[in-house]
Amino acid sequence: MSDAAHKAMWEKLDLDIEAHDGLLAVLGKFYGDIYLSQEGRLKGAEYLDFVLSEVHGLRIKEIQDAKAAGKKIVGTFCVFVPEELTLAAGAVQVGLCAGAKAGTELAETLVPRGTCDLIKSFVGFKLARLCPYTESCDLIVGETTCDGKKKAYEAFSQLANMHIMEVPQCKAPCDMTLFRSELVRYKEALEKLTGNAITAAALAEATKVVNAKRRALQRLSALRAADPAPISGRDALLINQISFYDDPVRFTAKINELCDEIEARVAAGQGVAPKKTPRLLLAGCPMAVPNWKLPYLIESSGAVIVGEESCIGERNTRDLTDETPADLDGMLDALAARYMQIDCACFTPNDERLDNIAALAKRLGADGVVHYGLLFCQPYAHEAMKVGKAMAAAGIPYLAIETDYGMEDAGQLKTRVEAFVETLA
Amino acid sequence: MSDAAHKAMWEKLDLDIEAHDGLLAVLGKFYGDIYLSQEGRLKGAEYLDFVLSEVHGLRIKEIQDAKAAGKKIVGTFCVFVPEELTLAAGAVQVGLCAGAKAGTELAETLVPRGTCDLIKSFVGFKLARLCPYTESCDLIVGETTCDGKKKAYEAFSQLANMHIMEVPQCKAPCDMTLFRSELVRYKEALEKLTGNAITAAALAEATKVVNAKRRALQRLSALRAADPAPISGRDALLINQISFYDDPVRFTAKINELCDEIEARVAAGQGVAPKKTPRLLLAGCPMAVPNWKLPYLIESSGAVIVGEESCIGERNTRDLTDETPADLDGMLDALAARYMQIDCACFTPNDERLDNIAALAKRLGADGVVHYGLLFCQPYAHEAMKVGKAMAAAGIPYLAIETDYGMEDAGQLKTRVEAFVETLA
Repeated sequence: MSDAAHKAMWEKLDLDIEAHDGLLAVLGKFYGDIYLSQEGRLKGAEYLDFVLSEVHGLRIKEIQDAKAAGKKIVGTFCVFVPEELTLAAGAVQVGLCAGAKAGTELAETLVPRGTCDLIKSFVGFKLARLCPYTESCDLIVGETTCDGKKKAYEAFSQLANMHIMEVPQCKAPCDMTLFRSELVRYKEALEKLTGNAITAAALAEATKVVNAKRRALQRLSALRAADPAPISGRDALLINQISFYDDPVRFTAKINELCDEIEARVAAGQGVAPKKTPRLLLAGCPMAVPNWKLPYLIESSGAVIVGEESCIGERNTRDLTDETPADLDGMLDALAARYMQIDCACFTPNDERLDNIAALAKRLGADGVVHYGLLFCQPYAHEAMKVGKAMAAAGIPYLAIETDYGMEDAGQLKTRVEAFVETLA
Repeated sequence: MSDAAHKAMWEKLDLDIEAHDGLLAVLGKFYGDIYLSQEGRLKGAEYLDFVLSEVHGLRIKEIQDAKAAGKKIVGTFCVFVPEELTLAAGAVQVGLCAGAKAGTELAETLVPRGTCDLIKSFVGFKLARLCPYTESCDLIVGETTCDGKKKAYEAFSQLANMHIMEVPQCKAPCDMTLFRSELVRYKEALEKLTGNAITAAALAEATKVVNAKRRALQRLSALRAADPAPISGRDALLINQISFYDDPVRFTAKINELCDEIEARVAAGQGVAPKKTPRLLLAGCPMAVPNWKLPYLIESSGAVIVGEESCIGERNTRDLTDETPADLDGMLDALAARYMQIDCACFTPNDERLDNIAALAKRLGADGVVHYGLLFCQPYAHEAMKVGKAMAAAGIPYLAIETDYGMEDAGQLKTRVEAFVETLA
């Protein structure tokens, strides 16, 4: 796309053009430093570079074309929103911008200062008119996974057309019933939005599409057990980030191609870092685009990241939806069962997460676990303490980091990470 | 009770005697400064003074006697735990110590530093062995009303026998169903704990007892509409605090006596502050014993508090449980309906709270609203912003305060409160 075409599109979306230009310039610089500087990168990473270079360009054009053809765009912030239903209604689902500081001062007029940067980011992007995804949405789906988001959506719903899904806090049968009824309510909201009835055939097809995406990401995750690590944690994180907003069929094909390349690399014993490089599993809060700060610090401190135990990672891809039911009711049951398996910190007690982390660290041959807590995220701050105890019991070295989107603490964090990595070498 | 008898009882409860002596000394000094220094106090306040002076003495002795007679003691932290069911099972329900800094360093080994002081307080009281109520409990009931408590209970449940009640986050029919099933689960837990089946007759009687307590507190609240204010906000808060742990029948009788005295005082046109003293409604987070910091600051700044829109206040007393159902199922329905009316910030969107505050301010003739947010309490921090907008729309002067249990900011807060009060005079 030409610069003029981009600009015209952004103007039509009523973005703040000047501020948006500034944002893209920073993003480009940031991406160059963190991504393009990597050595031994996969050829398939060209797809990632291209998608990122057109993150507010071609993909937005596709979305505008879809809208012109009558499709509806649904924005999300959470892995509990079932893409199967969204696709079955003929709509497009996109994860919304929440990984960069933007419009913070404006955001703090709507949410308290003691709110995590992820929430401030999506509120700020909206108020500062900086996110073409948000501005393209016909519906934005919120959920009750934490106090911060639950309450922020009350203010956000004055700015956008919202649907709030209730995610229960325990996993007893009554919770399953509640979440099942929330799936039905979301299905009805989609049908109303799109004018399309969600049929069993459409939901079966959509489930296949979403499962195929998950399988490609599972394949990628499995390949990262190889030593030397065949792909950097940064690139793997970026792939997971892109999975939230690129076209799912194209994305799946591209990631499977990339996995073919990785398989060849693994067979040849090649990797992005020498054998015996300390291998770390990153656990905790989601890292939305372009929140690459901690992975970059870790991978420039002599370690390589081999897995992401996060919503933008394993939590989104670990579980498949059962494809065997043939009727809508059975499919909705399967969806409820699949989504209620998620080991989000919103659940209590959520002990399965501790087991999942230990098992994942073992499967990936990780030498240690770094827990990333986003400042003011209370659920994961509590879990960081529990994970620390569980890792100590399992004999797995552990480092808990709490930080935000600012760069002020980068030096201090790097010192801590380097000291941790040294103990593993 | 003699000092020696007290000490023997506390030793039996395995309190840290030395630290506990220190705590009581500070509490006594604090109470003297904030309560006994008041002028024009009601004669019925002798009951409050006596209860407070024996807060860890006689009341604990009663509880120990009840235990010796086979009764079970149930501790709570939240107005969602239905005392009707607890009493119907023949158990004693007590609100647990959570209003003072105690054992903070110990607490921070179990919960994150970015946790509110109320939570750190109950964890700290337990770990530091300072609360004879906590140590007397056979069961402690937690609930999922905020991320902080929900996740803190995971750690706390390693220290005490706990039952977690799920409180839903919305008020749709599926939420009512979930809460109704949680009432049944709590009923079953009580029956298991006490060995007593909860009968319709027992629940009807218990409902009358709890409603009578609420009616006495409603009567008190109504009398505070008088100008001059017949009772200080401090004393009214203390009454609400005591309502959580004194014997409910005795408490109700004492508060009704106090209300008789207040009625006479109102008829005589007497009060604790001159007519035209600025009248404030205090809204927001609960103030557990002995969290009297903000009320004291306000009432020593030329204003009088005429209402508490809080869990330790109107949120706990506004709604009665319907006494008409004759069978257990109907009674449980009535309980679910009553408790799901609570306008806690845990619900989304919770707009009824905005209406309730405006209506309460009007009924009490309040000149302004002060919103108290406890530092790190995210739900009420969000609501403070919404309440501010609603009060602006209603033309009600508004001041939002965020603070904790520390006294470091007392001077600064007093300056802000005084400036606010001046604008109302």
